[in-house]
Amino acid sequence: MNKLEELQKKNEIVNYYIHARELMMWDLSTLAPKNAKQKLADGMTFFSTEIFKLTTSDEYYNLICELSKPEVFEPLDEAMRFEVAKKRRDLEKKRRVPIDFYEKYVGILNESTVIWPEAKQNSDWSMYEKALKNTIEAVKEYQKYTDPDKETYDSLIELFEEGMTQSQIDKVFDELKAELVPLVEAVTSCKQPDGQKFKIHIPKHEQIALCDYLLKYMGMDMDSFCMAESEHPFTTSMSVKDARITNHYYEEDVISAIFSCIHEGGHALFEQNIADKYDGTDAARVDYMGLHESQSRFYENILGRNINFWRPIWNDVCEIVPEFKQFTVEEFHEAINHVENSYIRTEADELTYCLHIILRYEIERAIFAGTVEVEDLPTLWNEKTNELLHITPRNDAEGILQDTHWSDGGFGYFPSYLLGSIYDGMFLEQIEKEMGDVDAILAAGNITKIHRFSLQIFLTEKPLILENYLLLIFHRVLQH
Amino acid sequence: MNKLEELQKKNEIVNYYIHARELMMWDLSTLAPKNAKQKLADGMTFFSTEIFKLTTSDEYYNLICELSKPEVFEPLDEAMRFEVAKKRRDLEKKRRVPIDFYEKYVGILNESTVIWPEAKQNSDWSMYEKALKNTIEAVKEYQKYTDPDKETYDSLIELFEEGMTQSQIDKVFDELKAELVPLVEAVTSCKQPDGQKFKIHIPKHEQIALCDYLLKYMGMDMDSFCMAESEHPFTTSMSVKDARITNHYYEEDVISAIFSCIHEGGHALFEQNIADKYDGTDAARVDYMGLHESQSRFYENILGRNINFWRPIWNDVCEIVPEFKQFTVEEFHEAINHVENSYIRTEADELTYCLHIILRYEIERAIFAGTVEVEDLPTLWNEKTNELLHITPRNDAEGILQDTHWSDGGFGYFPSYLLGSIYDGMFLEQIEKEMGDVDAILAAGNITKIHRFSLQIFLTEKPLILENYLLLIFHRVLQH
Repeated sequence: MNKLEELQKKNEIVNYYIHARELMMWDLSTLAPKNAKQKLADGMTFFSTEIFKLTTSDEYYNLICELSKPEVFEPLDEAMRFEVAKKRRDLEKKRRVPIDFYEKYVGILNESTVIWPEAKQNSDWSMYEKALKNTIEAVKEYQKYTDPDKETYDSLIELFEEGMTQSQIDKVFDELKAELVPLVEAVTSCKQPDGQKFKIHIPKHEQIALCDYLLKYMGMDMDSFCMAESEHPFTTSMSVKDARITNHYYEEDVISAIFSCIHEGGHALFEQNIADKYDGTDAARVDYMGLHESQSRFYENILGRNINFWRPIWNDVCEIVPEFKQFTVEEFHEAINHVENSYIRTEADELTYCLHIILRYEIERAIFAGTVEVEDLPTLWNEKTNELLHITPRNDAEGILQDTHWSDGGFGYFPSYLLGSIYDGMFLEQIEKEMGDVDAILAAGNITKIHRFSLQIFLTEKPLILENYLLLIFHRVLQH
Repeated sequence: MNKLEELQKKNEIVNYYIHARELMMWDLSTLAPKNAKQKLADGMTFFSTEIFKLTTSDEYYNLICELSKPEVFEPLDEAMRFEVAKKRRDLEKKRRVPIDFYEKYVGILNESTVIWPEAKQNSDWSMYEKALKNTIEAVKEYQKYTDPDKETYDSLIELFEEGMTQSQIDKVFDELKAELVPLVEAVTSCKQPDGQKFKIHIPKHEQIALCDYLLKYMGMDMDSFCMAESEHPFTTSMSVKDARITNHYYEEDVISAIFSCIHEGGHALFEQNIADKYDGTDAARVDYMGLHESQSRFYENILGRNINFWRPIWNDVCEIVPEFKQFTVEEFHEAINHVENSYIRTEADELTYCLHIILRYEIERAIFAGTVEVEDLPTLWNEKTNELLHITPRNDAEGILQDTHWSDGGFGYFPSYLLGSIYDGMFLEQIEKEMGDVDAILAAGNITKIHRFSLQIFLTEKPLILENYLLLIFHRVLQH
């Protein structure tokens, strides 16, 4: 067996472990019975630890080093070159983490993943406080091993946006905040369209049928896709043939499920269109979450809140949800473009959403700068909500407990949502330059043309130029 | 680490692998997208092989041998004594299977598991024929390794009914068949209650809500249970805190989902009530499938088809399924006790069901006696259906392709269903002797008393006397 085959053999095992762990995570978040969750969390810890042990072993690392030698490296295909180079960079860092600590770290994260949904459901901060404190300490310690010379929050941001720093984000977000706060104030002081009239009872099975219809309309390959329910909507992918989203259905608020579905659907479309040949390699994994979020938020906001998205399908929508027959597509369009300061990020409108992200970014920055204690987080959250959105959460489920991200150690992720929104505007500009007016394309029922175009840029044709393409966008953001 | 701790450490890893494999199987059969199924089947093959390698290794076997020495064995607790003795018996057999063959064997089974549902959906025998042929050959070869001195079908039966043989089953089934065929003829020649009037459109979401209600009524701990959809209803269990059933909903035939739910619910109740202390050990695994089926069929037939099961809940049932308001509980009771020769085993009534099993038993016997070729199986199936049930399947989905069992090599399982039905009558007798009239208990809405009683006998109090208890029943069956 040559070195490449040796690596592929080992990666095959790693991929089975990843599949098992991701499926356990999916199951834990969707269908698993309450009393089964601890066992699933334990299983995830076990497989994460096995993966860590296997990939940070001397044997695996030496294989990567052998394959990095120019005479071996150059003849590899592009996916393997990408894989070897990335693994080498990653392993230099990860091999500094002691395995005992890693096992403890994953255990803390998984425990917190089990506690958070219960705390949120009960709106009980005291249930979660200790788990969050442990998570923050564990994350700090982990990053100190991997990036001893960096500020913790910088190394966290790098997990989701390679090459980006707090100071770069500060620059963009501070400028945005300075203009956004008065803009939101100006908009919300005007009379807003009636957002309430769609808050009617729509049975869950109708909402599910509607989501199913919308995903097909967006161009989802339903043979490589599935959908389930969870507390918090998310997307995951077991392979390029297995993209999955979840949703949460509120029978009195159908618009929540509709836009979660379009958002997660954007992520899933991106995942299921990665070229087959990269499946199971690092080349198929997108480590720029701003890019991933740009896809989901492009569908959610730029397409989904456009009346022309809805015009060609309004009759079908009303067949699936007969309660909508009393409304026109114009009324629906108004309702989904209602701007209002609100508590929940995932349900916020396009405009105030940005402030929800800035709030989280500032809190995360404070946590890792050490300028706030964990016990003071609910108060800080409420103060910042008041400062940015002029409202105060009525309970912790509406405040500090609302998001899943921190429960599995995902600090540093939030900025990517807003970066994604910034990229969106640029995509729109580029798409219109190359394809013409998006309103007209949508109105003609040709949404999948847009989809094919954006995927063509990013994935199908030239997946590995993604880095360069993104850098180009970064420069435009940063020079803005 | 002493030998016991060493075994427990190894079993912990084995249990994580089992959990991963079972979850992949569950996912493959329920929610997984079509294009993801091959990867899940590959994952199952991988984990099955790893489990096989680990447990048949010299290291593992030597550990079991060490723990079998009287001075080490005697002080173990009852669960570990059971585990060590059983593992020793099993490993003597399994260690004769070459690992290369095992890997091939599991691959063949998993491939066939992927092909079968497609073949059934398309009613296309030609899609499945080769996979079934490979499966039969692989199963024969496997049994030749594990039980070189036994007839293949005897060793297959033993997988599900330890200590039982073809000739014992022949004796019971031949006698039953001789009396059943004329009995069914006599019953079906009488006017039957109208089974058609409940074949009205009941939306899937109402059927799901009804199943959920029935499971709670039966006493299911919903915090340790979940339910999904699949082509063929089944029960699985990831731990004593994680019993799962699937169902298949036909919107024009609600009675199908109701009785599948009660049947699988009986299995799940049994699984979720195994004492915690046996979880993850062999003592928690019931290798007498007749006993398992006796629980499911007891709920389905003895309780579920009794009008007193329905009387206390009929109002609730009609609230959940408003279409039922036009019927009385008496009409429903008649419809669910309708006897008719029909094509599909899982939907057959209590009486003709027995003939469906005898049909399968006779075909399996012929397959392993070598008196039928695989290509002739559809014809043999149809001839036997005609002989026993006086009808001829109109297509292979109604005939040879209807059951999932053969697709994963589960030959020898079918007799357990009928053995279970035979035990049921004995349980009823015993329960009435100890608790009084079951009709009265049901009519008073006290179904969970029966449940607690039967579990008390079998599991909660004295799980390891199960073998003896079962032998007692065997004797009664065989002496009958």
